[in-house]
Amino acid sequence: MARIVMKFGGTSMAGIERIRHVASLVKREAERGNEVAVVVSAMAGETDRLVQFCREAASVYDPREYDVVVASGEQVTSGLLAITLQGMGLNARSYMGWQLPIRASGHATGLIEGIDVAVLERVFDAAGIAIIPGFQGVTIDGALATLGRGGSDTSAVALAAAMKADRCDIYTDVDGVYTTDPRIVPKARKLDLVTYEEMLELASVGAKVLQTRSVGLAMRYRLPLQVLSSFEDVPGTMIVDDILGEAHMERNVVTGIAHDRNEARVTLVGLPDRPGAVAAVFGPLAEANINVDMIVQSVPRAGEKSDLTFTVPTASLAHSVAALEGVKADVGFTEILTDTNVVKLSAVGVGMRSNAGIAAKMFATLADRNINILAITTSEIKVSVLIPEEYTELAVRVLHTAYGLDAEDEA
Amino acid sequence: MARIVMKFGGTSMAGIERIRHVASLVKREAERGNEVAVVVSAMAGETDRLVQFCREAASVYDPREYDVVVASGEQVTSGLLAITLQGMGLNARSYMGWQLPIRASGHATGLIEGIDVAVLERVFDAAGIAIIPGFQGVTIDGALATLGRGGSDTSAVALAAAMKADRCDIYTDVDGVYTTDPRIVPKARKLDLVTYEEMLELASVGAKVLQTRSVGLAMRYRLPLQVLSSFEDVPGTMIVDDILGEAHMERNVVTGIAHDRNEARVTLVGLPDRPGAVAAVFGPLAEANINVDMIVQSVPRAGEKSDLTFTVPTASLAHSVAALEGVKADVGFTEILTDTNVVKLSAVGVGMRSNAGIAAKMFATLADRNINILAITTSEIKVSVLIPEEYTELAVRVLHTAYGLDAEDEA
Repeated sequence: MARIVMKFGGTSMAGIERIRHVASLVKREAERGNEVAVVVSAMAGETDRLVQFCREAASVYDPREYDVVVASGEQVTSGLLAITLQGMGLNARSYMGWQLPIRASGHATGLIEGIDVAVLERVFDAAGIAIIPGFQGVTIDGALATLGRGGSDTSAVALAAAMKADRCDIYTDVDGVYTTDPRIVPKARKLDLVTYEEMLELASVGAKVLQTRSVGLAMRYRLPLQVLSSFEDVPGTMIVDDILGEAHMERNVVTGIAHDRNEARVTLVGLPDRPGAVAAVFGPLAEANINVDMIVQSVPRAGEKSDLTFTVPTASLAHSVAALEGVKADVGFTEILTDTNVVKLSAVGVGMRSNAGIAAKMFATLADRNINILAITTSEIKVSVLIPEEYTELAVRVLHTAYGLDAEDEA
Repeated sequence: MARIVMKFGGTSMAGIERIRHVASLVKREAERGNEVAVVVSAMAGETDRLVQFCREAASVYDPREYDVVVASGEQVTSGLLAITLQGMGLNARSYMGWQLPIRASGHATGLIEGIDVAVLERVFDAAGIAIIPGFQGVTIDGALATLGRGGSDTSAVALAAAMKADRCDIYTDVDGVYTTDPRIVPKARKLDLVTYEEMLELASVGAKVLQTRSVGLAMRYRLPLQVLSSFEDVPGTMIVDDILGEAHMERNVVTGIAHDRNEARVTLVGLPDRPGAVAAVFGPLAEANINVDMIVQSVPRAGEKSDLTFTVPTASLAHSVAALEGVKADVGFTEILTDTNVVKLSAVGVGMRSNAGIAAKMFATLADRNINILAITTSEIKVSVLIPEEYTELAVRVLHTAYGLDAEDEA
């Protein structure tokens, strides 16, 4: 017997037919003798519809009331899944975030502060199944709160940690985590195992299978996560603490190639070579909560001016330029150049900690195709480069092959 | 300064444009210095959509989970109205039924057991506007509960009673209570005043402006109700305790003519003339919670058999016949005849208590048109007759004229 959390996304909950299929998956786990809590998203499209209502109602809306409106989507699917499971003869009941309670830190983008699992323990003692709406909780003063878009993954992981689950299964519309985007590289392989750290790097550079927050939370509690398809009955990808022994030795040094088109390049021309100039640039950006990445400064000759290049999320570009215009005269750079036609490519893998050749192989492989590298950044388990966007597919394909990730032909 | 509850139905809340108009009506009352609580329905069609989901999910559904699903409709409109009012610069906030709380007796067709208004008193002290979802509350064990279809009128009246409001305004898609259905009688007049008792009789015989439960509740607390249009800025109809003095003297003895097509006639042929026979018929119907109305028994000659005719709601007809078939042999009647092509016409008015001629005028007026009366029932403030349905419009028109209810020509 295991204690598990099953989480189903909006595509899996879109309409009664799909909810019935979800119920059959829940039933199977329950009939294996497992203790099951289910976390559900709103029907696909429903949260967008509700958010749109809020936007139409007022240009600036109170996050407290926004939460009242958008939390309703998961409330509906929770009740419907409970009804469906009951119709199959199972002992299922829904518990809203305010009923457990799931305590949230604030509105619209609340963080989970704690979950009271006393009610769930009683449900499991009575061989029951608990259905919990994802994405929501209740504040200290008793108001409905939501966790920000995609928060249902986080709800599921937090719940699994609180109830000391053996595993948290995230059912979605893909069947696992791949070595790269299969739409670009048909030879992409599904990974059986990936570490939390690798998953965090893959997620942060564009492989949007799981919400980054939820992976970080699972890592903190060493909670095994599984990503699998609610539509195809095949094993998914396990996300685990570390991959030891034989499995590790046989793994590729690079686990996957990710790309992220949501970065924009900013270049400040003619930055004076004096102490504090760079700090005067990044200070205002930090104050505006803009994440700066991939910083490159051309090395100036003594006393001359240099150029400073970095990336920001494309969504923050306009905001960034406004902040930079405000300090342009003070800092003394002459021009702000921006480019959104760039892509960030990353090779990710825990194995590269002890392998200096990974970065060198990336640069050589891209140089062979005459692909210009605009910026570079590295971490212990990742090498990232910024390149012109038009080379995205070519670059992903050649790197996937270069690192030995291509699937064998099945012929 | 007055303390008022404003209630808006589903048609008034259907979409952001209409919600914006509702907000302007709320703003006007607030700017007059009134203390305002607003009770809202779900957007028109939304509750039906949610109920349909439940039906598709399982043929028999748990009322507890049904309530979780359908209560979401009013949650959404409450939040949206709060956002819209805030966008207009007003201090508005929504409070769910479980937050006040509004205590409900049970699921799906719960009754309101009590409302805690401490939170609302604090809102009014801070010159705020409270938005409350209609149709819902919370059970003693903390589960979401709904009050049954149309329950938002009842929510509004119960809230008004609990907060000792001066008035409860029910905004709807008609501009008041009419002497009869204006689609049948173009000369129907809007009533300025009507008593609770008259309104109860009018509602129970088919004038569906207000939910009967809400009128009964208003009567118990002597709470003035107003029915008015959310689309047209004209005075509505006040529903009050009693109409005294001049106003009373000038009123017509008959206030309105109502009709109800939702009754079916049942005739039991050959009922034996012995003690207990009638009780043996109505006992099983009462046990099945079927409301029997308009009972007529043909007077038998001593020792002979008689016929028994009565009406039941059309929706309960199949159920009634099944119950009667079960006692047919025991009771000894020979046949069950049913007829759904009947209509119940009623003349209602508090003035008729002291006026014996009302019933006589009805019978004479219908006889003049050769309209056959199938059954009769009377109360202190109502005379009702059952007639063949095909005469509905004709009968309503001639009675409206006979009782002096026609509007003057405006020529």
